[in-house]
Amino acid sequence: MGDQANKQIILKNYVNGFPTESDMKVRNVAIELKLPEGSTGVLVKNLYLSCDPYMRNRMSDVKGSYVPSFTPGSVITGYGVATVIDSGRADLRKDDLVWGVTGWEEYSLIAAAETLTKIQHTEDIPLSYYTGILALPGLTAYVGFYNICSPKKGDTVFISAASGAVGQLVGQYAKSFGCYVVGSAGSDEKVNLLKNKFGFDDGFNYKEEHDLDAALKRYFPNGIDIYFEQVGGKMLDAVLTNMRLNGRIAVCGMISQYNLEESEGVHNLLKLVHKRIEMRGFLVFDYYHMYPKYLETILSQLRDGSIVYVEDIEEGLENAPKALIGLFHSRNVGKQVVVVARE
Amino acid sequence: MGDQANKQIILKNYVNGFPTESDMKVRNVAIELKLPEGSTGVLVKNLYLSCDPYMRNRMSDVKGSYVPSFTPGSVITGYGVATVIDSGRADLRKDDLVWGVTGWEEYSLIAAAETLTKIQHTEDIPLSYYTGILALPGLTAYVGFYNICSPKKGDTVFISAASGAVGQLVGQYAKSFGCYVVGSAGSDEKVNLLKNKFGFDDGFNYKEEHDLDAALKRYFPNGIDIYFEQVGGKMLDAVLTNMRLNGRIAVCGMISQYNLEESEGVHNLLKLVHKRIEMRGFLVFDYYHMYPKYLETILSQLRDGSIVYVEDIEEGLENAPKALIGLFHSRNVGKQVVVVARE
Repeated sequence: MGDQANKQIILKNYVNGFPTESDMKVRNVAIELKLPEGSTGVLVKNLYLSCDPYMRNRMSDVKGSYVPSFTPGSVITGYGVATVIDSGRADLRKDDLVWGVTGWEEYSLIAAAETLTKIQHTEDIPLSYYTGILALPGLTAYVGFYNICSPKKGDTVFISAASGAVGQLVGQYAKSFGCYVVGSAGSDEKVNLLKNKFGFDDGFNYKEEHDLDAALKRYFPNGIDIYFEQVGGKMLDAVLTNMRLNGRIAVCGMISQYNLEESEGVHNLLKLVHKRIEMRGFLVFDYYHMYPKYLETILSQLRDGSIVYVEDIEEGLENAPKALIGLFHSRNVGKQVVVVARE
Repeated sequence: MGDQANKQIILKNYVNGFPTESDMKVRNVAIELKLPEGSTGVLVKNLYLSCDPYMRNRMSDVKGSYVPSFTPGSVITGYGVATVIDSGRADLRKDDLVWGVTGWEEYSLIAAAETLTKIQHTEDIPLSYYTGILALPGLTAYVGFYNICSPKKGDTVFISAASGAVGQLVGQYAKSFGCYVVGSAGSDEKVNLLKNKFGFDDGFNYKEEHDLDAALKRYFPNGIDIYFEQVGGKMLDAVLTNMRLNGRIAVCGMISQYNLEESEGVHNLLKLVHKRIEMRGFLVFDYYHMYPKYLETILSQLRDGSIVYVEDIEEGLENAPKALIGLFHSRNVGKQVVVVARE
């Protein structure tokens, strides 16, 4: 096979503040669709790309982070679903489907291919789900709820960014566990999803609440036992005031803070003492060993309909920057996915 | 017995910001040194009073706190050591020594006497210790270190307000557990105590550090496993940046924040995620059932010299306001006690 045109999404420069589409650009290069002799890498054709909030961190020049920064002038990388074209790994062959870290481009030569996991695809499950519920966002929700929140039947649970990839699942887990579940999201359409699709007991549009403390008191007159934290800042402060004794806060992320030059200060931490609250941060990478068992469980739940899942599908690699940036403006309705190619 | 003069310390009005001596006043009243007929209370002569940071909270008009606010115009209450003059409680008799909640006055008629605990006094242990190491501050240190910090041998431990009633003990517990222990305090004299009296590995005077982050990096080049939090604000922010993976923060208090109209914002909470940190607030009242066992252990440790203890003794009830306010200016060297009478 000779050289093939390869469209790529490039980070132009490190970003300060809110990223915009102009921080990225489309570049066309040529790629030979064959691995170099002796390569232990994997050459893939990309199908679906995952847009995740943690990617914002990689757009800044941060030293010593838990994930390395992107390299300006180079292709953006992230989790995705791909089909194998050529493989230097004994356990992967041409036409295998995989998920793992790939490039934001049509074809990727993945030199360090350890993260690629072979997909046992069946027609009843959309392949794109391996960017979300069947990949790390799904495992994040599972671990976050069952391992970090220490849930008890009857607990009151509040989830911020509740309609996103992780939140929609946490809410369903909490409901099936016997908790009272309320979520916040950034539009009425999303709040409607929470209540009518994911089975939350209630939900509210945080953009329409001038007083988050008052909003939380309305939904939790007796306080919050468990907060699944994904936004930080003012929401966290309001939640701290409304936590119950011996409450738990699972800190999954703080998306409202990622684009600020200096993060907002959180003022109500003394409530941790008065209310005896446990606040615990976690990263899904520490729980990767639980993935096979998780996958088996969630596939069966998707098949029997006990868990539902909503994606926000953006068509075309060239629209990936817009889709990524949409996360930080709360534009995505459900898990944000970019379709590069369907096969 | 007829009426007896009774000197009292009165809170004049609710306090905003830093309290001053003029927020309190000395008042002389008369008290009959005999319980009313049928009383189930206890009449005591106060000997030693405890000055504790949490008392600041009670000087403000706070609704729904874990401890009620003081009443302006009334005598200040707090923990202390006293001798029983007259008792309506079957298990307490004249001349018994007790510790528990009493008034900042020479004599107190304690109507709700449930907190009074009889002291089995022996001459080798100073009676004043029942305001600190042999009372709730001691139990706070014990519970905070062993139950909340989840210590492991070899852990690096940082303690703020380290020479105070609680900190000095936490440091000694951590050292005896096999940890590397550094404390911060508000004067060179106190830092000297940490290193040469309490056996800390090192210590620093936070008032002489312009850059707390740099100071912590100097003492913990490989990071902090356990932070025993007693000050909050800028120190907490600096610690968050210097925590190690899977670190633990036991939140005992935040004394730097108690006198601010609005607490300082804490900006580095996202480190909880990146470093997988557990941050947990606690109140000693939840562990009161552990006191008898704790007392037995600590008495034996004091007697064999494996634990040492330093008090800052203020003579005279009329100086109690000055002593209490000194806590918030870091003036006390060791546990702050006020002597009302020695017998």
